[in-house]
Amino acid sequence: MDEHTVERGDAARNRTRLLRAAALLVAERGVDAVTMDEVAARAGVGKGTVFRRFGSRAGLIRALLDHSERELQEGFLFGPPPLGPGGEPLERLVAFGRARIGLVEVQGELLRAAESASDSRYAAPAYLVSLAHVDTLLRAAGVTGDTRLLAASLMASLDATLVLYQWHELGHPLHRLADNWAELAHRVVTGRGTAESAGGVVP
Amino acid sequence: MDEHTVERGDAARNRTRLLRAAALLVAERGVDAVTMDEVAARAGVGKGTVFRRFGSRAGLIRALLDHSERELQEGFLFGPPPLGPGGEPLERLVAFGRARIGLVEVQGELLRAAESASDSRYAAPAYLVSLAHVDTLLRAAGVTGDTRLLAASLMASLDATLVLYQWHELGHPLHRLADNWAELAHRVVTGRGTAESAGGVVP
Repeated sequence: MDEHTVERGDAARNRTRLLRAAALLVAERGVDAVTMDEVAARAGVGKGTVFRRFGSRAGLIRALLDHSERELQEGFLFGPPPLGPGGEPLERLVAFGRARIGLVEVQGELLRAAESASDSRYAAPAYLVSLAHVDTLLRAAGVTGDTRLLAASLMASLDATLVLYQWHELGHPLHRLADNWAELAHRVVTGRGTAESAGGVVP
Repeated sequence: MDEHTVERGDAARNRTRLLRAAALLVAERGVDAVTMDEVAARAGVGKGTVFRRFGSRAGLIRALLDHSERELQEGFLFGPPPLGPGGEPLERLVAFGRARIGLVEVQGELLRAAESASDSRYAAPAYLVSLAHVDTLLRAAGVTGDTRLLAASLMASLDATLVLYQWHELGHPLHRLADNWAELAHRVVTGRGTAESAGGVVP
């Protein structure tokens, strides 16, 4: 390993450590608590390191969002089933929603901030990649018609703003919200509920 | 008809005229364009009349929102089928979504402003009445399980922010978005699409 490789390895580790510290801060105390000072202290590095890596607080927040969305995207594009390629379309659809709701546990405040701040939230690359994925799975599962609009309707139920409200204000555990997504996906694709609510449809 | 009745009739007519003028202003030029001066000019009354009726610009905006939501509520609670009582639950569900999407045509900017401004949008009385209505219709249509959460998922697809984006930015006519709601409702309740997309489900 030459010196250059060591340096790049350190940089990547630093970056990951800083992003993890920032994500924990967001989860514990909200997006507003994320300052360069706090992140540096939490990660146990100097403030200069944080500025060198991300340029500004806005750059850090952007990197944090990119990071969480990219993990999800890598999961459904390249990861193992049931989320990744190889699984049944309906199972992948259920796994996608569960993973998205799981993201809210750590990144929820950040996702909500992005949703309410952005005029073009429905044009954001991460949203469009997820939308295309859900659309593709619906078609692969045999759904016809305007599956893109149907995908947008389903995606709407995964809004971080809504999920956070259902979790924090209404007291639904996240796994219960994930089960509701599974129920919705099953009904839309097969017309039957999940096994847990068998018999839920009048023919 | 005594003098008092005449006066109350005039007040009600004035109120309706002012609200209509404000709604048109919102539809044409956005919520920010709604000022007491503009509304007075548009309705052909003095500015004092607007202040007497609504107190402030905020009061006017609130009255405008209440007015549009109440019209929808009166439709599904007391109006004729298919929206009102007497129709089949699934037909009423389809009619509800169509009416909600129709509201966006005139009140969309206002509804969007309310959605993004409010921390407690999911606790707003108008939202809760609509949510309870969708929940009731799902159960009446034979859907079992946690229909309240399922209703919230369906309602999410009617967000004015999303509907406006699909209409203005993506160019989908509102009737096409209403058809997508019908498709979603049919699939969730019966497992079949609407007649227009027959054969859209793999058994």
